[in-house]
Amino acid sequence: MPPFRLHIFTCTNRRPEGDPKGSCAEKGSEAVHARFKERVAALGLKGEIRANQAGCMDACAFGVTVVIYPEGVWYGRVRVEDVDEILQSHVIDGRPVERLRLKGHFESPKLKRADPGEG
Amino acid sequence: MPPFRLHIFTCTNRRPEGDPKGSCAEKGSEAVHARFKERVAALGLKGEIRANQAGCMDACAFGVTVVIYPEGVWYGRVRVEDVDEILQSHVIDGRPVERLRLKGHFESPKLKRADPGEG
Repeated sequence: MPPFRLHIFTCTNRRPEGDPKGSCAEKGSEAVHARFKERVAALGLKGEIRANQAGCMDACAFGVTVVIYPEGVWYGRVRVEDVDEILQSHVIDGRPVERLRLKGHFESPKLKRADPGEG
Repeated sequence: MPPFRLHIFTCTNRRPEGDPKGSCAEKGSEAVHARFKERVAALGLKGEIRANQAGCMDACAFGVTVVIYPEGVWYGRVRVEDVDEILQSHVIDGRPVERLRLKGHFESPKLKRADPGEG
């Protein structure tokens, strides 16, 4: 039953392999979303907090992208192992996880730079 | 380049045919999202307004569901022909389209009532 106190959107967009932009799904975002969903339920927060899949949010250059509304706090390069910290620090304690935040009008270049680590 | 002034999420979740819950995609939400995307671009609002796909937002009983953040304004039973009005009235003029709004803690029954009109 919406509205939710916090609505967590994780980009699970998947582009074809070899697309120069890459995509959040290629970088593991489906597991990030699944972890949010599982932990929200386990913490008894269902109904209050919603973990949602989203299509491309135009922040492709920043790894797995998550935005939490209505606050409009954006996170980039989120890994599965960051999810519990986001839930505990931000969602429960009200302190966004600063090291993962994307702030201001962060730029999203048209083409991701080649990243040799993500063959 | 997020953050956006307004971020429009349209549920494009699709459940298997015959699922008693139905789904927004089955009710035409992909065309609704496509219209938002096309009109946002045509109106020169790209970068300021983002039309985004979303997974299930737990409002399945209310037809095609749209939420606009950071305001947290929810719309239900949105049809393609409503999109231009939402963009003009809400997004441009700042007046949400009251006849389509879902207000308060609207209930989302576990099972959608049988709807003979949606064979």
